[in-house]
Amino acid sequence: MTVVSSGPVADLVAELGDAAVIDSDTMIAYTRDQALLCPSGRPLAVVRARTVDHVVATLKTAHRHGIPVVTRGAGTGLAGGANAIDGCIVLSTEKLDRILAVDEQSRTATVEAGVINGDLATAVAARGLWYVPDPGSRAISTIGGNLATDAGGACCAKYGVTGDHVARIKAVLADGRIIHTGAVTRKNVAGLNLTRLLVGSEGALAVIVEATVRLRRAPAHTATVVAAFSDTVQAVDAVLAIQAVADPSLVELMDRTTIAAVNDMTHMGLDETAGALLLIQCDGDAAEAEAQRSADACRAAAATELHVSTDAAEGDALMQARRVALTALERRGSTLLDDLAVPVPRLPHMLDAIARIADRHRLLIGTFGHAADGNLHPTIVFDAADPDAADRAHRAFDEMVTRCLALGGSITGEHGVGGLKRRYLEPMIGSVERSLMRGIKAAFDPTGILNPGRAI
Amino acid sequence: MTVVSSGPVADLVAELGDAAVIDSDTMIAYTRDQALLCPSGRPLAVVRARTVDHVVATLKTAHRHGIPVVTRGAGTGLAGGANAIDGCIVLSTEKLDRILAVDEQSRTATVEAGVINGDLATAVAARGLWYVPDPGSRAISTIGGNLATDAGGACCAKYGVTGDHVARIKAVLADGRIIHTGAVTRKNVAGLNLTRLLVGSEGALAVIVEATVRLRRAPAHTATVVAAFSDTVQAVDAVLAIQAVADPSLVELMDRTTIAAVNDMTHMGLDETAGALLLIQCDGDAAEAEAQRSADACRAAAATELHVSTDAAEGDALMQARRVALTALERRGSTLLDDLAVPVPRLPHMLDAIARIADRHRLLIGTFGHAADGNLHPTIVFDAADPDAADRAHRAFDEMVTRCLALGGSITGEHGVGGLKRRYLEPMIGSVERSLMRGIKAAFDPTGILNPGRAI
Repeated sequence: MTVVSSGPVADLVAELGDAAVIDSDTMIAYTRDQALLCPSGRPLAVVRARTVDHVVATLKTAHRHGIPVVTRGAGTGLAGGANAIDGCIVLSTEKLDRILAVDEQSRTATVEAGVINGDLATAVAARGLWYVPDPGSRAISTIGGNLATDAGGACCAKYGVTGDHVARIKAVLADGRIIHTGAVTRKNVAGLNLTRLLVGSEGALAVIVEATVRLRRAPAHTATVVAAFSDTVQAVDAVLAIQAVADPSLVELMDRTTIAAVNDMTHMGLDETAGALLLIQCDGDAAEAEAQRSADACRAAAATELHVSTDAAEGDALMQARRVALTALERRGSTLLDDLAVPVPRLPHMLDAIARIADRHRLLIGTFGHAADGNLHPTIVFDAADPDAADRAHRAFDEMVTRCLALGGSITGEHGVGGLKRRYLEPMIGSVERSLMRGIKAAFDPTGILNPGRAI
Repeated sequence: MTVVSSGPVADLVAELGDAAVIDSDTMIAYTRDQALLCPSGRPLAVVRARTVDHVVATLKTAHRHGIPVVTRGAGTGLAGGANAIDGCIVLSTEKLDRILAVDEQSRTATVEAGVINGDLATAVAARGLWYVPDPGSRAISTIGGNLATDAGGACCAKYGVTGDHVARIKAVLADGRIIHTGAVTRKNVAGLNLTRLLVGSEGALAVIVEATVRLRRAPAHTATVVAAFSDTVQAVDAVLAIQAVADPSLVELMDRTTIAAVNDMTHMGLDETAGALLLIQCDGDAAEAEAQRSADACRAAAATELHVSTDAAEGDALMQARRVALTALERRGSTLLDDLAVPVPRLPHMLDAIARIADRHRLLIGTFGHAADGNLHPTIVFDAADPDAADRAHRAFDEMVTRCLALGGSITGEHGVGGLKRRYLEPMIGSVERSLMRGIKAAFDPTGILNPGRAI
């Protein structure tokens, strides 16, 4: 037990009681997210806020003492955006976990930042409603974290990303003042769009404590197509052909390396002779017709195997193969997971570049991702205990991002900049644009205490 | 012909040649938008930019001399956001009118700011693609203006507003530097969302000169429902019931006053005994089934008349009744057009308040709008030559906005703040939030020359 009698930590303990954690053993669990290779520091204290007042008190204290604050939800981030900085306060919103209201007629839900995405989805599903955003982490990640990273997922091609489903945000500024952004109405053009500015700002502008999100009617039907191709070029041809005839809710891709890893783990018996597998889902009144047209498009693109299912449970089981892709690859070694996005027609160039980079650096790279969005997660598998392998892995990572930029892509489709992608930000967005972002940060957080060095 | 030998006007003429207009007769056409009751000033000069270089030169000159710049597209705005300020430069982007590229595979188009929305829609329709945003002005308004106001339209309930369809923006800062925001990829979380910040900023942050917008596959089918109700409460009941069983692309409402005005003008023979009319369109593979379910919902909500059509031409003709609503009301006198948005379940309260306000001030108010979004355009018709009537009209306008705020609504759903809604902005968004917006403006435009007093 650490005893502290004065200074910022004493202030936190005095104001927050047991919401302030200064015990090292407990703090260790709050020092990093899931970007395991990103550096993290040692926090001064961890605050597990249970109320908005706790957040306000934390920020006022941090502001007064000029201490950096790293906000985190469930810590499932993949870019190091929630990793502690030496001497910071880690502010966890995970215990702000109340669903405050569900309005069936307006189809909105108001939730605290720490509500788990999947818990919200389950709660509204009981009323025939659907919270759409489906990041891979949805079972364990929070709405606040999803907003802070503008989390993507599988069904973005049809339904958009997290930011497309938020109406209002309540947040606390660096100095402890509370703001409300947006409007509950579907249309609102009053003033600048602060809501979309907070979304994806990785805790660098304000601390999101509450949000009103939009819900949809749950689709009546879904239909699933699984298609195998001899190589990834044909699979991408199929994606483009599908998009010309249907609006699938998702089109997921797995390459040969990923297929083998998934089979090893699950014994699902996926076709290991295939160079690439597509999982396609269509939903709504015309789900079956759209799935059939999608299957026809796959056939025309030389699919070697095709399976169409209108059974929701079977569709879910098939999607499970894709969901476990990262876990399956992690069983083969340490992983360095990337998150690149290119225009869909350029996917073959990106996939080809990944294959060449893997060969050149003698690395295993399994690639899976959201083909309909051009959003790939090439995952470098290597032996972290071997310094040479680690070095090759980092070089390969660097080369993939560089190639993605040359193809007109984004350095991060859905994971965020965090610490992992910081050095690629300015090459992508430009120096004038970055200085504008710094100016915006200064307007929100003039003393620069909120997640310094992240997002921007 | 005015002759000027030194100062900002001389600089503009020297740098821009005939793109700089200083002839009073020509300038008069560029002094105001369609918000006829908003004040406008007398510009120093008008620049009709034909190239991005013209925009850069204009802004550098304005910046050097500290002269306000009011940017305008086609001048179809309805909030006075493009009205000239005394001594300003009016910068028109209407001649930046090239469609630079249409990428069928990525389903994007890159256009200059002055391209007319309808021209873009027609150009991409020839390739089976669809530019979705459909503000009422689409035949005559520009993409740049649509972006600057985040223009809405009819099909936003299903497809979102202008900002939901833009991938990248090229803009010129107040000091003449060029920026690029966003990414062409569907997913991109690299840095703060400058794209959504520029959208709706009414020319107060930067001058939009080019954009890459997203296109969709054109829907294969559409189906239209017309339903009459004895009063607006039943019509709103129907809207809620429809949204529980279908995803209509649009649900438009006209009240009794509007119906009569449209009949007078068009002799369409709409049911004048009705208290409200709904026009509903569904699109996509299941258009007919969705329209049928929507019609059933209207019947259950006591529709007095119902007509379902799967003929696209007939659907378009029916929509024409809604499109001419404002023109029809304008034939009855001067109009003061409002743009309020409330949550759909609160539409009856808003409509009731409008009726009471009309009675109290002895005014004719015709209300039409986008019922699926809760976005209403109550239109006060009065004799502008009668000072008492004008006074009552302005008081009624004020009371409607105040009531809308009390109902949790937005002071502007799709027209923007401009000059018209400026005094309601802070009551809606809050003073801390407004100071953040001012801080953001200062980061973009430190000397405050871009559309000062508008948007924020």
